Amino acid sequence: MFRPELKVLDCTIRDGGLMNEWRFDKAMVKDVFDGLAKAGIDYVELGYRADKKLFSPDDFGPWRFCDEEDLRDVAHECETKVAVMVDVGRTDYEAFLPADDSIVKLFRVATYVKDMDKALELGNHIKSFGYEVSVNIMAISCAPEAELDHAIEQLAATDFDMVYLVDSFGYFTSQHIHYLAEKYLNRLPGKQIGIHTHNNQQLAFANTVEAALKGINYADGSIYGIGRAAGNCPIELLLGFLHNPRFDVRAVFDLIEQYFIDLKKQLRWGYELPYAITGALNKHPRAAMAFIQAGQQGSFARFYDQLLNSEDS
Amino acid sequence: MFRPELKVLDCTIRDGGLMNEWRFDKAMVKDVFDGLAKAGIDYVELGYRADKKLFSPDDFGPWRFCDEEDLRDVAHECETKVAVMVDVGRTDYEAFLPADDSIVKLFRVATYVKDMDKALELGNHIKSFGYEVSVNIMAISCAPEAELDHAIEQLAATDFDMVYLVDSFGYFTSQHIHYLAEKYLNRLPGKQIGIHTHNNQQLAFANTVEAALKGINYADGSIYGIGRAAGNCPIELLLGFLHNPRFDVRAVFDLIEQYFIDLKKQLRWGYELPYAITGALNKHPRAAMAFIQAGQQGSFARFYDQLLNSEDS
Repeated sequence: MFRPELKVLDCTIRDGGLMNEWRFDKAMVKDVFDGLAKAGIDYVELGYRADKKLFSPDDFGPWRFCDEEDLRDVAHECETKVAVMVDVGRTDYEAFLPADDSIVKLFRVATYVKDMDKALELGNHIKSFGYEVSVNIMAISCAPEAELDHAIEQLAATDFDMVYLVDSFGYFTSQHIHYLAEKYLNRLPGKQIGIHTHNNQQLAFANTVEAALKGINYADGSIYGIGRAAGNCPIELLLGFLHNPRFDVRAVFDLIEQYFIDLKKQLRWGYELPYAITGALNKHPRAAMAFIQAGQQGSFARFYDQLLNSEDS
Repeated sequence: MFRPELKVLDCTIRDGGLMNEWRFDKAMVKDVFDGLAKAGIDYVELGYRADKKLFSPDDFGPWRFCDEEDLRDVAHECETKVAVMVDVGRTDYEAFLPADDSIVKLFRVATYVKDMDKALELGNHIKSFGYEVSVNIMAISCAPEAELDHAIEQLAATDFDMVYLVDSFGYFTSQHIHYLAEKYLNRLPGKQIGIHTHNNQQLAFANTVEAALKGINYADGSIYGIGRAAGNCPIELLLGFLHNPRFDVRAVFDLIEQYFIDLKKQLRWGYELPYAITGALNKHPRAAMAFIQAGQQGSFARFYDQLLNSEDS
């Protein structure tokens, strides 16, 4: 596929940070930003801007908070824009500079369907400072359709720039992606639509491709697929698929070689059976992460039956 | 998806054997067959029947040859049928019993497009003994379309039972699969069409799903995705997708727990960057396997450039 307008956002540090409390050292994050800039990636998401009244900087690495000065230590102004994620209910409204004074270009508001009113408020607040704003609606595989439709209707009436289709649990197959991509594209005219996938069932890259084929123009990837649990869409596969000469995948290969092969052994994201089970059953991966961290007490079959018989996720 | 007529073939021992010269011990293969039978799998492919005049039994495990007595040591007559693969040009025509005297029900003839005449001869020979016969056309991502079309035309005129769409290099995305599945289904009326995928770009399961959605009714999988290089479609994911009550995925989970997690550490199939590179570039994985076995001498970027600039695969 070659569609020049399709933009790529790398979420390596932000989603990968869920596996190590965002304790990536600055030299490494700087190399990651520089490498991704060299590869031609459009946006690099460097973490969350969490509220320090709710989360102590003693307990997390700097990319949990993304202070302006920390961001400037690792990134610089260039074609590759800095993105930061904010969680509804976990964000300090005072923590935003005017966009002209910040290295951040894009804030992505992560929300559940049920919190859409709060997401709109937070998004409007951030938009008022002059930033690009995206709303990423999480866990939609468990949201009642009417509520999702209402949330989309509300988003259509905003001046936000993007809305992301997110497969939080790694549950969707191409049929879901096609259906939802059409919904988002049809009901959000004038907005860019993005896709963020998880790899529980080894479908993160495939689903990203399906969304792109349907016309979605923002795609998330991460280096070597790093991300929570089974991880995300490997950005090296995505670049290979896009065949866009402005991307150079070699710079991503170099980062994988330098950092991510060792990091994968250490942080252990990627395909594992408990993640496949939560994905196939449309459940949050937290049960699988706990099962793995506890040294897999009990059999996979028993883990499966427990989840199958659990009342909720 | 629930389509009761869709049948599943497990190629764990056959394709996985490419990673260890088919040196799986008999107790393990017996457990695999029993577990897959318990899971309700339709066919279990236990290896190749290679010509002993060409390959010495001293150099390989028993599943390179699949002697009748070895098969009977690990399998028994039941709903789950035994399949064996034969390679064009590597098969002893004298090595077939009448089907009624054999535990094998299905022989799959693996061939390149260019060897189709030999494949037809071998298939007809095997069919004359009363077996089910499939022809699996390999490496079609590198075959001229007109030659593939002619091969399919020849196959349409046989009384073989199945023809398999094979993505040998793990190159195809859904667009290729849709196009080829339609071709095979339209041009081979009365035959069952199967799909066999490789996981170089993490698309083995996704492509199997796409083929099934298009109407293909035979799907290959392997336990925990074992197979050459990046491996095959994980059968546990396939069973989860099929939602067919006659399959019980728990028996596969138990086999993964007992054997395949350790085996994966030892044999090292699955996603690795060199396999992703050969897949994306539509090349045989042998260059990637050599690069990995040589301890990755040189960078990934250099490996990529070498392949990109190589004259052929």
